[in-house]
Amino acid sequence: MKSSYFSLTLITILFFAGMESLTAQEISAMQAPRVVSPEVNGDNSVTFRIFSEKTNEVTINGSWMGFRETLPLTKGENGVWSVTVDPLPSSMYHYNFFIDGVAAIDVTNPHALRDGTRYASLLMVPGEDAKVFQLNDTPHGNISQVWYPSPTLGTDRRMYVYTPPGYNSSTESYPVLYLLHGAGGDEDAWTSLGRANLILDNLIASGKAKPMLVVMTNGNAWQTSTLRQIPGLPAPTRETFPQYQGKFEKSLVEDVLPYIEENYRVIRDKDHRALAGLSMGGGHTITASINYPGTFGYIGVFSSGIFDANADMEEMEKKFQALKASGVNKYWVACGEDDFVMESNKRLLSILEKTGLEHEYFENKGGHTWANWRTYLSMFSPMLF
Amino acid sequence: MKSSYFSLTLITILFFAGMESLTAQEISAMQAPRVVSPEVNGDNSVTFRIFSEKTNEVTINGSWMGFRETLPLTKGENGVWSVTVDPLPSSMYHYNFFIDGVAAIDVTNPHALRDGTRYASLLMVPGEDAKVFQLNDTPHGNISQVWYPSPTLGTDRRMYVYTPPGYNSSTESYPVLYLLHGAGGDEDAWTSLGRANLILDNLIASGKAKPMLVVMTNGNAWQTSTLRQIPGLPAPTRETFPQYQGKFEKSLVEDVLPYIEENYRVIRDKDHRALAGLSMGGGHTITASINYPGTFGYIGVFSSGIFDANADMEEMEKKFQALKASGVNKYWVACGEDDFVMESNKRLLSILEKTGLEHEYFENKGGHTWANWRTYLSMFSPMLF
Repeated sequence: MKSSYFSLTLITILFFAGMESLTAQEISAMQAPRVVSPEVNGDNSVTFRIFSEKTNEVTINGSWMGFRETLPLTKGENGVWSVTVDPLPSSMYHYNFFIDGVAAIDVTNPHALRDGTRYASLLMVPGEDAKVFQLNDTPHGNISQVWYPSPTLGTDRRMYVYTPPGYNSSTESYPVLYLLHGAGGDEDAWTSLGRANLILDNLIASGKAKPMLVVMTNGNAWQTSTLRQIPGLPAPTRETFPQYQGKFEKSLVEDVLPYIEENYRVIRDKDHRALAGLSMGGGHTITASINYPGTFGYIGVFSSGIFDANADMEEMEKKFQALKASGVNKYWVACGEDDFVMESNKRLLSILEKTGLEHEYFENKGGHTWANWRTYLSMFSPMLF
Repeated sequence: MKSSYFSLTLITILFFAGMESLTAQEISAMQAPRVVSPEVNGDNSVTFRIFSEKTNEVTINGSWMGFRETLPLTKGENGVWSVTVDPLPSSMYHYNFFIDGVAAIDVTNPHALRDGTRYASLLMVPGEDAKVFQLNDTPHGNISQVWYPSPTLGTDRRMYVYTPPGYNSSTESYPVLYLLHGAGGDEDAWTSLGRANLILDNLIASGKAKPMLVVMTNGNAWQTSTLRQIPGLPAPTRETFPQYQGKFEKSLVEDVLPYIEENYRVIRDKDHRALAGLSMGGGHTITASINYPGTFGYIGVFSSGIFDANADMEEMEKKFQALKASGVNKYWVACGEDDFVMESNKRLLSILEKTGLEHEYFENKGGHTWANWRTYLSMFSPMLF
């Protein structure tokens, strides 16, 4: 496929290069079979294609399939492999090819997404349910990659800040959602696979969510930013991990929150601060909200819960009581019925019941997936402020 | 390799999941051979590795090699393919594997870069020359993805704005470099493969460049943003292209420049505005600077020139005379000796000579490559303001 994407660039260059001459090799590259992938057909079935003359086997895994399921492509004329999958419900998906067993993005699809250390190709199946995840013709908020000082972690660190459409030209102050990623992710996760900025753009445009800032931090207390270790610290292993525990939650409330409130036009009280997170970030959300009661008036825990089966539940109940006393406007818990964290999720629900902390629980199909986390954000953000 | 990156995430999840139990399949995935790639050896030779039991052939192309050259990997024990390349000079590189002929990023290397529609894996060979392209332990500027109205193109569009370290806490006004990408790129190009933000961070930290804003626009007049067509417009082809010509340059000066000067603390005169671009962006730079004389006091043209061999050179000379009369502090031209745009570059140099517009020319080895464009930016930005 080197030839195919290469020719696209060449054609563009030609507009400008005008009289520059092409080599025979370049012309032949432009004549290689043009491959379209993915192609969404009229009935929302999807055809995937990849050009390879030398490959023994090509398979595909998509986010609509099981985590380790693969589907074979078959080789056709001109060395183009293809497979058509049954009509898919309108939504956002991602997928990888396996070229003789090696995971690869679809080189004819320029839309790739990063999920921690992995890359996958984007598939958007159009229709009503995809609209909230798409870049639509609405006003857009801005995303800033912001470096801020973290005295707690002893380093400058990076976060992403979404400011809603109109923020720059307004004099208004806004509420803030602090939105946390899971294990293996970083400050880029909620905008890359999570699409938080587009979800907010679309919900704000349709009047379903209020304009708000969204602050997406890096929850790995050993990193400065995407995949970058803080110099001089040990890598997190079973042995070194305990030294990092609780540090991120402290830095979130004591470093990030004051920075945002000093540098952005935001409303500085608990009724205009929300905190939500997925998986590990849900754990961070639980810890930060009970350790700092009265700080966040809205709390969302996605695909998470109380991970430690040996946690001191009496001690924790006291903390949840203090949180309840501080006044919580909304405590929302969501989990997929097949999620491997279901036991942890149940521990959280049980303590909420015991404490009498008013909450809502949403359970849907599926497991520990970005499809669920995007859905949860699109349900939770309209409940805010 | 699915197993290898998967296990990393699993290990991290384990810290948090604590008591959650793993399936036999997950445990077996964690026991697959761990592959390190790329590995920079003591002498700066580099070993690349990829795990694949079923592949017939694996090759690699790196940015230190010819554009179409490939080097074979050889299969070792445990299905791990590898190759070691001779010591490389300290610098930043990128590379792709070809798995039975199919281009792929290195799945064990989490650092991937986007170049237009393509993805490649990052290789940093440490040493003095890599330092200017690395994330060092210095203060960092912020990058914002900013949507702005473009009356010229009839749509909201997106640009990236770099604000230097200290911008947020200062009351000072700053100069601005408008930095343009080439054909096939977009507003993301100068920060992804170009590393403009890190180059500026490092040069500002060492006192070699003045603190400045860098504004990186989308030069494709048919797009709103990365790979997104403006709704209702025809795709650029040989036939439709003329309708887009000159539009971007107009929108740069008439839409982008006023937006920046209204929304950021910047100095609003030609002596504090620079314009530079690579390839197609160099063409945009030439056109915008001669069509709006007195707007930009510093001009950089990288790997570019006057593409149209049939251009009306007399008409153009008049425009260059007007530019000269408006007062240019620095006109800097750079090109690789093997670059396919050399004829265009020579046409530009010849008109600069004819006009007597004082300029500097830098020619180095190599061709139309990001290695050269990063070098040119690291040479040009210290000349500014």
